[in-house]
Amino acid sequence: MNMKKNAAPPESLSFRKMSPHERVTTLLEEIGVPLSEGKWFESQHPPVERANQWIENAVGYFSIPLGFADHFVIDGIRRRIPLAVEETSIIAAASAAAKWIQQFGEITTSAQLGENIGQIQFPSVSDARAAQEKIQLRSDDILSFANETVPGLVSRGGGFNRLEVRILERGFPFQTSMLVVHLFCDTKDAMGANLINQACEIVSASIAHLIGEEVGLRIVSNLADECRVTARITLRNIDPALAIRIEEASRFAELDPYRATTHNKGIMNGIDGILIATGNDWRAVEAGAHAYAARSGSYQPLSIWRTDGEGTLEGNLDIPMSLGTVGGVTRTHPSAALCLKLLDVKSARELARIVGAVGLVQNLAALRALCGDGIVAGHMRLHVSNIALGSEASETELPLLKTRLENLFQDQKRISALDARNILSLMRGGR
Amino acid sequence: MNMKKNAAPPESLSFRKMSPHERVTTLLEEIGVPLSEGKWFESQHPPVERANQWIENAVGYFSIPLGFADHFVIDGIRRRIPLAVEETSIIAAASAAAKWIQQFGEITTSAQLGENIGQIQFPSVSDARAAQEKIQLRSDDILSFANETVPGLVSRGGGFNRLEVRILERGFPFQTSMLVVHLFCDTKDAMGANLINQACEIVSASIAHLIGEEVGLRIVSNLADECRVTARITLRNIDPALAIRIEEASRFAELDPYRATTHNKGIMNGIDGILIATGNDWRAVEAGAHAYAARSGSYQPLSIWRTDGEGTLEGNLDIPMSLGTVGGVTRTHPSAALCLKLLDVKSARELARIVGAVGLVQNLAALRALCGDGIVAGHMRLHVSNIALGSEASETELPLLKTRLENLFQDQKRISALDARNILSLMRGGR
Repeated sequence: MNMKKNAAPPESLSFRKMSPHERVTTLLEEIGVPLSEGKWFESQHPPVERANQWIENAVGYFSIPLGFADHFVIDGIRRRIPLAVEETSIIAAASAAAKWIQQFGEITTSAQLGENIGQIQFPSVSDARAAQEKIQLRSDDILSFANETVPGLVSRGGGFNRLEVRILERGFPFQTSMLVVHLFCDTKDAMGANLINQACEIVSASIAHLIGEEVGLRIVSNLADECRVTARITLRNIDPALAIRIEEASRFAELDPYRATTHNKGIMNGIDGILIATGNDWRAVEAGAHAYAARSGSYQPLSIWRTDGEGTLEGNLDIPMSLGTVGGVTRTHPSAALCLKLLDVKSARELARIVGAVGLVQNLAALRALCGDGIVAGHMRLHVSNIALGSEASETELPLLKTRLENLFQDQKRISALDARNILSLMRGGR
Repeated sequence: MNMKKNAAPPESLSFRKMSPHERVTTLLEEIGVPLSEGKWFESQHPPVERANQWIENAVGYFSIPLGFADHFVIDGIRRRIPLAVEETSIIAAASAAAKWIQQFGEITTSAQLGENIGQIQFPSVSDARAAQEKIQLRSDDILSFANETVPGLVSRGGGFNRLEVRILERGFPFQTSMLVVHLFCDTKDAMGANLINQACEIVSASIAHLIGEEVGLRIVSNLADECRVTARITLRNIDPALAIRIEEASRFAELDPYRATTHNKGIMNGIDGILIATGNDWRAVEAGAHAYAARSGSYQPLSIWRTDGEGTLEGNLDIPMSLGTVGGVTRTHPSAALCLKLLDVKSARELARIVGAVGLVQNLAALRALCGDGIVAGHMRLHVSNIALGSEASETELPLLKTRLENLFQDQKRISALDARNILSLMRGGR
């Protein structure tokens, strides 16, 4: 659902306060989809036979909670973001951070041209330089042949554009080198792993013949570092002390892999949520993102935050993002198709930019909570709710249990599952 | 469902050939759960109100396909593995690899004691050595205080065992150091992020007072490198040439981050699947795994494969694995609870070992396909099925479309969405 900035329909103001069914109705009405489609979110799985076609040994489905983060304005366009995720507070935190950004600044994004990489390995090559030259001399022919395997993609303006021949030294005691050919492919609106695997498998035999060496693996690389998005958040006139604490949190991640891991995990909390909701392969993006974070030789945060010390804060995210709006289950899964319709994206690149923005907003949301009261204190109500749900309380016991847990938290600054059990047994004892 | 090795019930032989409903019935009967529980897999979401308590702005659920990989024998115990995943061929490949292992070798696993890390940051400390000493001198008191915040965990034999004080040099032009206290916590059967966050928030004020410095972040680290599992697969008397190709595939990943990323992504295909199915936080495990892969300064594969050249192949996986069998949605989500029951695990550690084994089997499955006919050719039928499903074919058109696509693949070694469209329009033209 695109809405012009500042032109959000009035009902969006209370999206948070709606019942789930009112939210579904609102979302579907905005894009003119029959309300009956809401069943895929609200009650029903797709037919089990479908699951049995998508995967093997299917028994059906696993229901991941799905919600929509609100208040996002990305590159001037207002959007609600579908997130499929089991963790409490991710959506609340993202919505609150997005609202904060709307008030004090903006989110802008950009995307690279976007080439995915196919790898063809020649494990053991005696004269690697000579083989490299031979392949480079015939690179036009190799690319043409590769493009013959993807006629549909070429007709849509995509295809294989260039190649690289890399020599990897095997080192002592080996007397040969490993040779790796990278085929770069613009996969357009598909993630394209299958197209690339197929092309690599077909052209590899001809390259092997050309250089007289045996071929090894032929497969896409998930380190899609030529297919990146950047997102930037700028905030002005915020509390300078908070901005400084956020910069210090960023510097902590820059100095320490133990912190960088969790910093990046916070980014992926949002990114995986929208990837799953749109039917994309989150493992591919996870692997590419974290490996890219390690490119300098030390594992680094994917985003950096800096302040001028006077209330301006800027965060920049740079992350590989290979995904699709066609292919896989993006169009065949009714909920993924519906989420894509609700996002109203025209291309994979547009989706990739939104995903990058979601990652950076989620990151800011976590840093803001961590640099304020702390993550537990900041999300006290959600924390209480989680502990209450984990107890054996019935639906009728839940409200009172939550109230008592909140009071206890105010008193002693902490609560545990044990507290919930104790309160519950007191409640059931009639006291 | 535990079954002694070689004592698998006869129906397991045809698990692959059952209908999804027969699979559900078989699984539930084996553990004596009412067949009505199958509705959570087969047709129905949990109540929408539940989603609205787990997350915020909920509209309901997203259905991820759920299947069970078969033929796993891990540490001598036969198991079927629940995997929630949208990608074709993951479950088929895992089952086939597990069957291969059953025939030619075995999978063994082990787990470390398992301590999770809480971090307390002091961003800017002028005399870091003095502060470090002060904290170390009072470490017993700090740990006692931390344990007071987690009485339930302590009563179950867990809790905070030790601490470390790390000094991070901020470098030019800074004149101060960053000080980071690591609190190590045995979280028992919980993943424990909230417990750790809460303890860090509470004790941080006392440490800040002790050293007279301002506190920064207080939060769990997802680089859970003191909480690792290892898995080993040994195969004997397999085709020596295939074993050598698999070692070469491993060496490729050891030499090249572009390959290591995809190698590890293949491991996580299985790991994320079982994590989601058991209600665990897969982003935390993803982040920890990939950051751990980067610990040496170059991004490395999480598993290494070696052969003796005579048909023995051994693979070893070493991966951080922080997860829970209690807490989060593990027990409150009916499908997660059911998957945990079906796995019949007694502790988080046992689950972690299974998850490690699944990752390594999934890795072997991918390498075996890649070192054989190739990933596309090896999964030709699944590839065909995927392309057919992505076309606009009706359920009645699908079988003929698939047959024609398979024939085309045999002829030209490749097929595309364009081929499916062409065949479909020929079919509809009555030819």
